[in-house]
Amino acid sequence: MKFATFRWRGVEGFGAVVGEEIAPLAGAMSGVANLCDLIAHSSVAEARAAVDAVRERISLADIEYLPVIPNPSKIFCIGVNYETHRVETNRERLGYPIVFLRVADSQVGHGAPMVRPRVSERLDFEGEVALVIGKGGRDISEAAAYEHVFGYSCYNDGSVRDWQFHTSQWAPGKNFARTGAFGPWLVTPDELGEIAELKLETRLNGEIMQSATVDEMIFSIPEQIAYLSTIVELRPGDVIVTGTPGGVGVKRDPQVFMKAGDICEVEVSGIGVLSNPIIDQD
Amino acid sequence: MKFATFRWRGVEGFGAVVGEEIAPLAGAMSGVANLCDLIAHSSVAEARAAVDAVRERISLADIEYLPVIPNPSKIFCIGVNYETHRVETNRERLGYPIVFLRVADSQVGHGAPMVRPRVSERLDFEGEVALVIGKGGRDISEAAAYEHVFGYSCYNDGSVRDWQFHTSQWAPGKNFARTGAFGPWLVTPDELGEIAELKLETRLNGEIMQSATVDEMIFSIPEQIAYLSTIVELRPGDVIVTGTPGGVGVKRDPQVFMKAGDICEVEVSGIGVLSNPIIDQD
Repeated sequence: MKFATFRWRGVEGFGAVVGEEIAPLAGAMSGVANLCDLIAHSSVAEARAAVDAVRERISLADIEYLPVIPNPSKIFCIGVNYETHRVETNRERLGYPIVFLRVADSQVGHGAPMVRPRVSERLDFEGEVALVIGKGGRDISEAAAYEHVFGYSCYNDGSVRDWQFHTSQWAPGKNFARTGAFGPWLVTPDELGEIAELKLETRLNGEIMQSATVDEMIFSIPEQIAYLSTIVELRPGDVIVTGTPGGVGVKRDPQVFMKAGDICEVEVSGIGVLSNPIIDQD
Repeated sequence: MKFATFRWRGVEGFGAVVGEEIAPLAGAMSGVANLCDLIAHSSVAEARAAVDAVRERISLADIEYLPVIPNPSKIFCIGVNYETHRVETNRERLGYPIVFLRVADSQVGHGAPMVRPRVSERLDFEGEVALVIGKGGRDISEAAAYEHVFGYSCYNDGSVRDWQFHTSQWAPGKNFARTGAFGPWLVTPDELGEIAELKLETRLNGEIMQSATVDEMIFSIPEQIAYLSTIVELRPGDVIVTGTPGGVGVKRDPQVFMKAGDICEVEVSGIGVLSNPIIDQD
């Protein structure tokens, strides 16, 4: 199934994507007010039954997409996790994944503008596959890791490069308001086939900037889940943004940064296309 | 006023500390279910009136303290922000504050055990002054910064040193479950006098390990608020953990790490003592 979070006629909701429409599910299932609740307290089977019971359908053309999970308890990002990006950034191969955090307030949904802040001209794209945790847990083994994934989505880990490198810690450049695009929806694993074969592509104004498959990751999704869950309990709805391949704008010659009027797309095969226009901060 | 978040008879609540008792305020003010709500939707004056109206008092000895703000939207931590700690860590003076993030799931309250994880023997203390944002905002000027502070508290930014330095990014070592102690309560500025004169002291088993005053910070509280609010909107209840002075365990000779049975205290003058026993992860 595909699930999205959206605003329609001024009200936030979530639902299942069925063809070109959405079946709104807020209020359709007991105790489930948002997608995070569904993941924590319900099941795909119950959601499927609710979709059949709900007669209402809204055209996807009429909704405003919100971040798939607007308010996760944790957004982990994995840095320099494709060999091509490791080489272009001239970094050593490490024994552990690079982990940094995003705050929920830095996110936007599909179609919403990503905002280049007034203080920088160096807003860069990073196309990534995001996963959303289903069943929570601590100390999850690599063997069991995929059982804890509720679904997959596209993510654009928009990075303000000068602020990312103000100091050794990247958090400032990775947390500007409206720089983390997440959507358009999540897709449950049963619809995706082999995760390692998922193809990731980032396009800026139609030009391919990044292209890779998930099996090119340095630290695999099970390794990421095992590492992170050693640190802290993963909860339903937590997000892991799994890393970006080579081709980022800052490492191109000449360098490419996003500017007002640009359109950045992140496509993951079997999931869809996350598309965001770029605007300047007011 | 002093505000605390706690569990009593199995139920989470929050309230105002009055002498050796707490006046529970959950349900006493319309639309205010927790301390974050009070900060966002009410005022100290209304809280004072509610304390007078509420007859109930609970002895502080009977409550289980929770993190002052259990679930802030953002927890910013400022790294290497006292000259003594900069020198002991052999780092350059930088033009910008070092910023990293904590997740709420890494926190514990006053009196609760801080947990040394099974995977490390290098759990270190970092005593700090924490501040809680009152009025939110973006692009807050240094001149206006103190108007956005609701109150101050003590924080022990417990750090798992080997995991902190697995890679360049510190998030893993700064986010282990039950390593970030936050309490016992927050104190509003009107009760504190000159913030720059607050004295911070960390004691391990009674021995003074860190001692500094807030005016020794490299980046002042207004500079921190201005910098962070350039990145993203600060919201009521957001937490800034303002940095630790010299004396951390990993930089001592011989090195000192916390182990089961230890008691670590962080005291800030005018606020109180945050005390946590150390236990091993099960």
